[in-house]
Amino acid sequence: MGEFDLIARYFTRPVRRAALGVGDDCALLAPAAGMQLAVSSDMLVEGRHFFADVAPEALGHKALAVNLSDLAACGARPLAFTLALALPRVDEAWLAGFSRGLLALADAHGCELVGGDTTQGPLNICITVFGEVPVGQALLRSGARAGDDLYVSGTLGDARLALEALLGHTALAPGVLAAVRQRLERPTPRVALGLALRGVASSAMDVSDGLLGDLSHILKASGVGARIDTSLAGALMAQGSAVADPELLRQCTLAGGDDYELAFTAPPLQRAAVAAAAQASQTPVARIGTIEAETGLRLVDGQGRPVDQRYASFDHFG
Amino acid sequence: MGEFDLIARYFTRPVRRAALGVGDDCALLAPAAGMQLAVSSDMLVEGRHFFADVAPEALGHKALAVNLSDLAACGARPLAFTLALALPRVDEAWLAGFSRGLLALADAHGCELVGGDTTQGPLNICITVFGEVPVGQALLRSGARAGDDLYVSGTLGDARLALEALLGHTALAPGVLAAVRQRLERPTPRVALGLALRGVASSAMDVSDGLLGDLSHILKASGVGARIDTSLAGALMAQGSAVADPELLRQCTLAGGDDYELAFTAPPLQRAAVAAAAQASQTPVARIGTIEAETGLRLVDGQGRPVDQRYASFDHFG
Repeated sequence: MGEFDLIARYFTRPVRRAALGVGDDCALLAPAAGMQLAVSSDMLVEGRHFFADVAPEALGHKALAVNLSDLAACGARPLAFTLALALPRVDEAWLAGFSRGLLALADAHGCELVGGDTTQGPLNICITVFGEVPVGQALLRSGARAGDDLYVSGTLGDARLALEALLGHTALAPGVLAAVRQRLERPTPRVALGLALRGVASSAMDVSDGLLGDLSHILKASGVGARIDTSLAGALMAQGSAVADPELLRQCTLAGGDDYELAFTAPPLQRAAVAAAAQASQTPVARIGTIEAETGLRLVDGQGRPVDQRYASFDHFG
Repeated sequence: MGEFDLIARYFTRPVRRAALGVGDDCALLAPAAGMQLAVSSDMLVEGRHFFADVAPEALGHKALAVNLSDLAACGARPLAFTLALALPRVDEAWLAGFSRGLLALADAHGCELVGGDTTQGPLNICITVFGEVPVGQALLRSGARAGDDLYVSGTLGDARLALEALLGHTALAPGVLAAVRQRLERPTPRVALGLALRGVASSAMDVSDGLLGDLSHILKASGVGARIDTSLAGALMAQGSAVADPELLRQCTLAGGDDYELAFTAPPLQRAAVAAAAQASQTPVARIGTIEAETGLRLVDGQGRPVDQRYASFDHFG
């Protein structure tokens, strides 16, 4: 099966919202009046972002999920995406599974596949995603102000715990492994929460490389610092009770990576609005700290005592 | 040097036209009123699209050029692009050269790097490019009509001749090799011609996988056929006089690949307008055939006699 047959068979679908989809030199997108287009690209590489034996359907899901998570962090509504795919060989079973996982998530978010590229090469998945956001309403990293509350959505650290178990670094009961592996392989992009936080959050970003490392980008972009209650953050791991080692628990929750949750800030006056956004989007949200004028991160325990330990973020070249 | 330093050092530049560039979860683009956004993605893989020993500066140029060529084929004006890059290791000399070639071409076209991703992995370059085109004015593949003239821009086949020489399939004098290698490694996207052909051409696409194979996409999308004078197409190779074997000459010009020229159609009434577009864009244009109602490709020689030989197009999984 050649490249063009491949594209036609697994990835061509009727155009819905885009003006022109797969099959011309370019796709054509027309944002509605008053809308900006939010754009993000992520590249997933075998051995770096996923294991060689991951189920193709889960990989299709994750490849789009990590991109949708970037739209969520900007408060943008998913619109369309392009897929560039390098494959060692044409493997129809793999393609069928991959496209099924990919397009199921795309359909759930009304996000249309409008173009891309396929080629032979070491497995590599590059998705560029497009979303719409009203001009001036995008959630940025640069809006955090001293006195703001610091929040994180959902759960933290379960994906990292799965990684540690799959790498043989820790042992988990089968039921726990299944649960955390689901979080690693099928993350939930917090799109609805991102949309609900427009006009409420002062800054936001998605947590993909570990909470503390990612948070440092908000702090740097906003020129502020933060105090975090590590006991609150540590409690956000769904399977935390399965982790006996407190050091591993902190590592997973504070510097885990692959969470695809939203970290965001909002003034205390917005606490009711944040709670309403969480409820409207059916997404748990926890307040774990405070933005401070003094730059740097200050970690404290449940009694407010400093926790010295620092946690490196995940760096794809680290 | 970590991922974030890498991004900052080689790829972060002041934002110009985009509303928000590198360094947040998403870039923000705001097409002007009445404009559609044309989007295209291309992925380049070592050994498939370039040799391992290609100069990084040339590779940076080519990675963007092949994407700009897609915008040209739609008559879109370059606006911005994202870059996702997998690298086996952080190699500063390579990054310096690559970014120099990439950004020089970007600057020449006013096309702004607005975001992307870097990761460790087998060398892979994925660029998604964005252009603007007035609503309804994009050049599509589907507009060719029986009676239209068929044109191709620039030169054809030199890049393929370089590939044949570099693979050791044919021997070339050093001066000839240098000239054709330039065409292979530093193609010229025909952006100005694409813009000048808005409202003139009835269909267009870029020639990247070989003239005949790519042309078949226009014919299929338009529901028509074509007659091509292979002697006219064969004369479009700049270094054609260096090729003694007529079969190799036809292979290079008709099914060469990597040309990044525009193939387009226009009604005969538009001949003066096509000539004016060629002149305004300083791009040579040659009329090499005619669109016909009967589907299929008919190749003829200079005397109108059928040429039986068919030439396969390049398929990235062929």
